Amino acid sequence: MTGSELTNIRSPRVKAARRLAKRAFRDRDRAFLAEGPQAVREALAREGVVVELFTTAEAETRHPELIAAATAAGVPVLRASGEVMAELAQTVTPQGLLAVCRFVHVPLAEAVPYTVGREAARRDGEAGTARLVAVLAHVRDPGNAGTVLRVADAAGADAVLFTDASVDPYNGKCVRASAGSLFHLPVATGVAVERAVGHMKAQGLRVLAADGAGTATLDDVDLSGPTAWIFGNEAWGLPEELLRLADEVVRVPIYGRAESLNLATAAAVCLYASARAQRGT
Amino acid sequence: MTGSELTNIRSPRVKAARRLAKRAFRDRDRAFLAEGPQAVREALAREGVVVELFTTAEAETRHPELIAAATAAGVPVLRASGEVMAELAQTVTPQGLLAVCRFVHVPLAEAVPYTVGREAARRDGEAGTARLVAVLAHVRDPGNAGTVLRVADAAGADAVLFTDASVDPYNGKCVRASAGSLFHLPVATGVAVERAVGHMKAQGLRVLAADGAGTATLDDVDLSGPTAWIFGNEAWGLPEELLRLADEVVRVPIYGRAESLNLATAAAVCLYASARAQRGT
Repeated sequence: MTGSELTNIRSPRVKAARRLAKRAFRDRDRAFLAEGPQAVREALAREGVVVELFTTAEAETRHPELIAAATAAGVPVLRASGEVMAELAQTVTPQGLLAVCRFVHVPLAEAVPYTVGREAARRDGEAGTARLVAVLAHVRDPGNAGTVLRVADAAGADAVLFTDASVDPYNGKCVRASAGSLFHLPVATGVAVERAVGHMKAQGLRVLAADGAGTATLDDVDLSGPTAWIFGNEAWGLPEELLRLADEVVRVPIYGRAESLNLATAAAVCLYASARAQRGT
Repeated sequence: MTGSELTNIRSPRVKAARRLAKRAFRDRDRAFLAEGPQAVREALAREGVVVELFTTAEAETRHPELIAAATAAGVPVLRASGEVMAELAQTVTPQGLLAVCRFVHVPLAEAVPYTVGREAARRDGEAGTARLVAVLAHVRDPGNAGTVLRVADAAGADAVLFTDASVDPYNGKCVRASAGSLFHLPVATGVAVERAVGHMKAQGLRVLAADGAGTATLDDVDLSGPTAWIFGNEAWGLPEELLRLADEVVRVPIYGRAESLNLATAAAVCLYASARAQRGT
């Protein structure tokens, strides 16, 4: 424990963390907040990510292993009063654990690496070759974005790209909805979508745009090869120019009477279809 | 148009509709609210469902076809001021259309019909045989429940059952998240889960519980036959006794490092796997 309990919501340390709820301050400090035991656990599992950890007395009793892990990693653990934690946390029922984390995103070329002789590398299953990538283009709802990040992780995606017109992956709702997945796989952010598509095509990935306007359905396309999926805005899908950039526009077949699927469930169906086709199951 | 514009948020008609935001009043009146053009369109497409339609002047200009459909069906159309609509609507940006609807759920035996000689009926693809059913057991979040309803509809499910421990399907958030699907397929509600499982087994449906604790994965089970999926609470899954009732407990394989999927994305993957297996794609 570093010092005594923080009880003043106006103390500089509390204020510095609190303002990370705003994107401008996150970008300035290159830091964000991760709330709750699951996110904190995943953040601590990545070296050098957690800058400081706020905890309540109760949370320390409930999660001694996390306090121990933070201490072992040299992360300052700051005991906070319930009032201070309520001020810092963005959820209605804060669970008494909140980490200030360094940005974890990587450049596009690191998320989807350039590889020399990539086909050979792919055949050999060499590390650093991407077989499945999810791109969030114009996704504005942070909860949706985080859920897609989580499902991409579950489906074994190699990277997730947030284009420049998408929500900030460090938005508190996105971090929470990702349920730790933000810390699991390479994430690039602020990427111009044309650049992302060009880069992925150059790496031998087939770029599929998921859109209800697609002429091909998920059942029509061969998903066994390296694939990048582009997912768009929930309300209006993907813009014309982006549909033209893709190798193919693919829709999830609607077998019943629903007009469409929501973003996260459509992404789940597409990414799992890819995962299974790539594994030959 | 019936009478002049409603401008008083305290008028009996407005108050009677407004209180349908509460479950006790919904149950008493056997009525609920459906907001926005999509839900209103789907509600009007089912005869006898819409009791009355509140609209703003602006919405009337934007959706004349819905006003015409309501009028043709003998549904009273009540012009409301912006203030009255804001009072009635549960969304921050009400779209100026709100229907008071009669309950649409049906008894269990109608949602998943008893059939004499059901195997023969199934072979002949006779109407009234259920091949794919989604059961929401202990689902408490109305947004999740509505999203599962929507994805079940998209996957071509024949019915959706809400057990007695689940959220009210007429909760405003559930209605909105279902995006009209509440009006598309038979929904039963308040069903005891043991009774639902027993009934479905008697109809020849294989009952699969979706749970991260499953020993079988989605890739291991034959999904080509008539199947009922049980989905549980997001936070703690399905209770022991329910897992024992199922023919099999099945998990969605996690290929990456995510701990789990959220309820709606897991349901999407399971229901689409069934839909595709049943269609032989």
